[in-house]
Amino acid sequence: MDINTAYVINTLYVLFSFVLIIFMVPGFAMLEAGIVRTKNVTAVLTMNTMIYAFASMGFLLLGYNIAFGELANDNMSKWAALLFQMAFVGKVVNIMSGGVSERAKIVPLTFFTLIMSSILYPLVVNWTWGADMLKDTAFDLNMYDLAGSTVIHSVGGWALLAAILIMGARKGRYTKDGGVRVIPASNIPLVTLGAFLLWIGWFGFNGGSVGNIASKEGADAVALTILNTNTSGLAGAIVAGGLMLLKYKKLDITMILNGALGGLVAITAAPDLYNIYQPLLVGTIGGALVVFAVPVFDKFRLDDPVGALSVHLVNGIWGTLAVGIFTEKLFLDQLKGVVMIGVFAFVSSYAILFIINKILPLRSKNDEEMEGLDVNECGVEAYPEFKRAF
Amino acid sequence: MDINTAYVINTLYVLFSFVLIIFMVPGFAMLEAGIVRTKNVTAVLTMNTMIYAFASMGFLLLGYNIAFGELANDNMSKWAALLFQMAFVGKVVNIMSGGVSERAKIVPLTFFTLIMSSILYPLVVNWTWGADMLKDTAFDLNMYDLAGSTVIHSVGGWALLAAILIMGARKGRYTKDGGVRVIPASNIPLVTLGAFLLWIGWFGFNGGSVGNIASKEGADAVALTILNTNTSGLAGAIVAGGLMLLKYKKLDITMILNGALGGLVAITAAPDLYNIYQPLLVGTIGGALVVFAVPVFDKFRLDDPVGALSVHLVNGIWGTLAVGIFTEKLFLDQLKGVVMIGVFAFVSSYAILFIINKILPLRSKNDEEMEGLDVNECGVEAYPEFKRAF
Amino acid sequence: MDINTAYVINTLYVLFSFVLIIFMVPGFAMLEAGIVRTKNVTAVLTMNTMIYAFASMGFLLLGYNIAFGELANDNMSKWAALLFQMAFVGKVVNIMSGGVSERAKIVPLTFFTLIMSSILYPLVVNWTWGADMLKDTAFDLNMYDLAGSTVIHSVGGWALLAAILIMGARKGRYTKDGGVRVIPASNIPLVTLGAFLLWIGWFGFNGGSVGNIASKEGADAVALTILNTNTSGLAGAIVAGGLMLLKYKKLDITMILNGALGGLVAITAAPDLYNIYQPLLVGTIGGALVVFAVPVFDKFRLDDPVGALSVHLVNGIWGTLAVGIFTEKLFLDQLKGVVMIGVFAFVSSYAILFIINKILPLRSKNDEEMEGLDVNECGVEAYPEFKRAF
Repeated sequence: MDINTAYVINTLYVLFSFVLIIFMVPGFAMLEAGIVRTKNVTAVLTMNTMIYAFASMGFLLLGYNIAFGELANDNMSKWAALLFQMAFVGKVVNIMSGGVSERAKIVPLTFFTLIMSSILYPLVVNWTWGADMLKDTAFDLNMYDLAGSTVIHSVGGWALLAAILIMGARKGRYTKDGGVRVIPASNIPLVTLGAFLLWIGWFGFNGGSVGNIASKEGADAVALTILNTNTSGLAGAIVAGGLMLLKYKKLDITMILNGALGGLVAITAAPDLYNIYQPLLVGTIGGALVVFAVPVFDKFRLDDPVGALSVHLVNGIWGTLAVGIFTEKLFLDQLKGVVMIGVFAFVSSYAILFIINKILPLRSKNDEEMEGLDVNECGVEAYPEFKRAF
Repeated sequence: MDINTAYVINTLYVLFSFVLIIFMVPGFAMLEAGIVRTKNVTAVLTMNTMIYAFASMGFLLLGYNIAFGELANDNMSKWAALLFQMAFVGKVVNIMSGGVSERAKIVPLTFFTLIMSSILYPLVVNWTWGADMLKDTAFDLNMYDLAGSTVIHSVGGWALLAAILIMGARKGRYTKDGGVRVIPASNIPLVTLGAFLLWIGWFGFNGGSVGNIASKEGADAVALTILNTNTSGLAGAIVAGGLMLLKYKKLDITMILNGALGGLVAITAAPDLYNIYQPLLVGTIGGALVVFAVPVFDKFRLDDPVGALSVHLVNGIWGTLAVGIFTEKLFLDQLKGVVMIGVFAFVSSYAILFIINKILPLRSKNDEEMEGLDVNECGVEAYPEFKRAF
Repeated sequence: MDINTAYVINTLYVLFSFVLIIFMVPGFAMLEAGIVRTKNVTAVLTMNTMIYAFASMGFLLLGYNIAFGELANDNMSKWAALLFQMAFVGKVVNIMSGGVSERAKIVPLTFFTLIMSSILYPLVVNWTWGADMLKDTAFDLNMYDLAGSTVIHSVGGWALLAAILIMGARKGRYTKDGGVRVIPASNIPLVTLGAFLLWIGWFGFNGGSVGNIASKEGADAVALTILNTNTSGLAGAIVAGGLMLLKYKKLDITMILNGALGGLVAITAAPDLYNIYQPLLVGTIGGALVVFAVPVFDKFRLDDPVGALSVHLVNGIWGTLAVGIFTEKLFLDQLKGVVMIGVFAFVSSYAILFIINKILPLRSKNDEEMEGLDVNECGVEAYPEFKRAF
């Protein structure tokens, strides 16, 4: 294939992948809008919209340059490459914002979005996929992470952990005697729709990260990547369903979907390196980790309405380490990446959130939280005509 | 075009088609979640998720091999071909599960999903599109069925008929004096969203089934296929709307959307063989068949909340026969395919469902059905905060 | 690249763009279904479905021929080109129908849809992108309008203005003392979902309008087009959010999303001609125009529930003129196009709607409007089980 044909085909392929990732914007928005209580639905949707706008803008104007240096690309249009990378950045903050929903204020989180997307995340990308300014230092990383089990998902998860530690749990979530009060999701069809839009977006996320489809080997690698991505999600859903049935005799759909997402996060580090059966194991463990991690975080009173710590942080770590177990990549290289990026992401997010919190409190006031963020933050109720059952 | 370029382009094209088909997963889920009553919404969504997980898994691990033998492909990545075929299989069970919703239990249907996807459906594919083990026997088929009017839609419809015969109607659907009680859909926006996601998925279903875009003729065939697919759906919607207006002076959106789906099912056998006007006729008849078939099935007390028998079984048959009427394909070949596959699909599904039913009853108990499957099967209500009007 | 490869790649690229545009069908449907009151939701969804069916059909059977003459294409499958153009036409009527929702009857608007899609819009396309029958007359246009800031969005907006003038405001929208009664959107998640589906569809709308991806320059132009399209939407969302915060201390999500859509409309005339920073300005002004235009239209008692006049008409004009300001295209050429097409679209739409209104009243009767169009037009309530809060 001549070089121009390859350039065109790769551009088309990456634009296709980009569009799939953008489906994750309504994906996250619907998932979170379905999980929170009706009084906080508009706030969650507004937050997701602001994240898409500010994260993309921050990355476009500053972040891309920090991550990759000069904008250049040989094998596809540089604009397509920029779009593809830009599509990633919002996800990091989506992961974080979902886990602090029902009490986080939109404006301060928007400031965090801007800093994360224009500085913090771009530094992580520089370190791993990008210009690599720490090359040949003690911090040089050899971690393999195709599409971001660590770079995207753990980073978002660490930022979330920092945010939860600063902001605390929702009022009434944990009782004084150590109990956990169940706060049911308000709209299960939206949760399901959102989860499947995310799943579909993942095909673009991972498939596009291969970066070159314009050769027989490239085409095989992209197709294998999408196949393995899907398989791991399937395995995660199945094991989560099975465990719920064993434990409670009920098929809790939110846990099944989170199991699938856990499998998808876990495979993301190396869907191109596994054979077609290994993702069964990666996803099975990923789905099981979600089921077991959710109550553990609650035990530590880390209140995360959407289960993002279990899905993204735990499985981001698991998925990155799995590459060191199942492939020829070195386990220690994977571990080093997990730890170093984890420390950087957690400490820097904590520091930035801490400072923002001093200037503009991250958390809504008690009475605002009781009344719901929709009225107080947005002035718009999500379902004004539907009478509340309680 | 050199062979490598063709390989790459076909892989990209089939991956694109695959992704479109996966939009049918939330498509079916939203459509069905919108049609059933609020008390059964979570169960329907859970069923759809389990179907995607188990059907894909069954086909990946066993079914593909039964259908096609060794995994090989000359003109695209074999992984892309596998993904594309795998995306089809869940649809067969989706068709069936939708029609028994509001009374079918999830776990036994999951067992059926596994058997359908790993054995029954793969045998049908072997017989038609695949390895063809019955070649040169009396059962050899020459039916033309590009994307599955028979192979997918009738098979799902026959399995549904078997399931309805075994499970019976929803409580209260038919009165003792022969009347039919209308059970209104609970969420029309979800029905509409689901129908359009299905419609979009169809472009991948039919367009991808052409199998080769990498030549001038191939590109024309794919584009014509998508054009004709769409036209038949348009015609189905228009005729269903017109008939509703004539009959009731009202534009019943659920019937209009089912008319569109009927047109889409009918065209699926040969969208590549028609000129651009014939789909008007195929879809018009398809849409009309839906409007006329729905009350007929109710007359026979075959309770099918989503109208799947009318959409998929009736139009699967009509669409396959239409190829024998409007193209040079032989009518008798088409008829033979419809009958033989129909007998196989109905008998085998009935037998498997009958056996499963003896071990693990397919149908929920009366009080569970009254209370709703969401609480009993999933432990999760779909809209816990919305007060019921009745 | 040889000519056959280019033909195949362009066909695939335009089919991909076509599919993205079709996501705008549920996009408009969900956006409008979320904005209107629950009693009018089914009617809006039915209207959108009828528009897709009749607009596509009208364009397929007659309009394409009026617009482009004989069906021919050198650089891609003619069927793909037809599909792409056909996907546009429904949008013109969607823009119009949204703005008269909650009082417009479905059947007369369906007649208008047929006339708009088979005659009026095709004449505009003939004049601009198509066969150009007015070439070398005084009406010859040199306006640059890549994907339809004027051809699609203003035309839809002018038709809407004509319709509002004929049909008047919703009952109770304006009080006798000149006040405006706020009628809140009934379902914010649907509004958000719809807006993001539209946003995604825009990538196909504008990206596909470049018309040729099969060269290095073509690939760059398509990627730049999509990048700039997105940037303008981001800027529109951000400025609308900022202005709402300044004005009301609240982040009104419906205004933020309309700001994004305003930015998307404005960039549509020339996303391929701008550098990557100019869309920031185009979109910022676009978003601001939405925020300022909405109360102005209300002052004139032009009742437009979805804000379509501000989003599509105002920004269609702004976007077309912006090309004359920021690029080498002549401002007067752009202005001439805006004015001439505006006059044609407004006058012809007004005349056709006026005539239809004499034969079949466009507007529902007062008591029907009070009870809601769902029951009267469709016989199907959107959410029959949800108890109304008022």
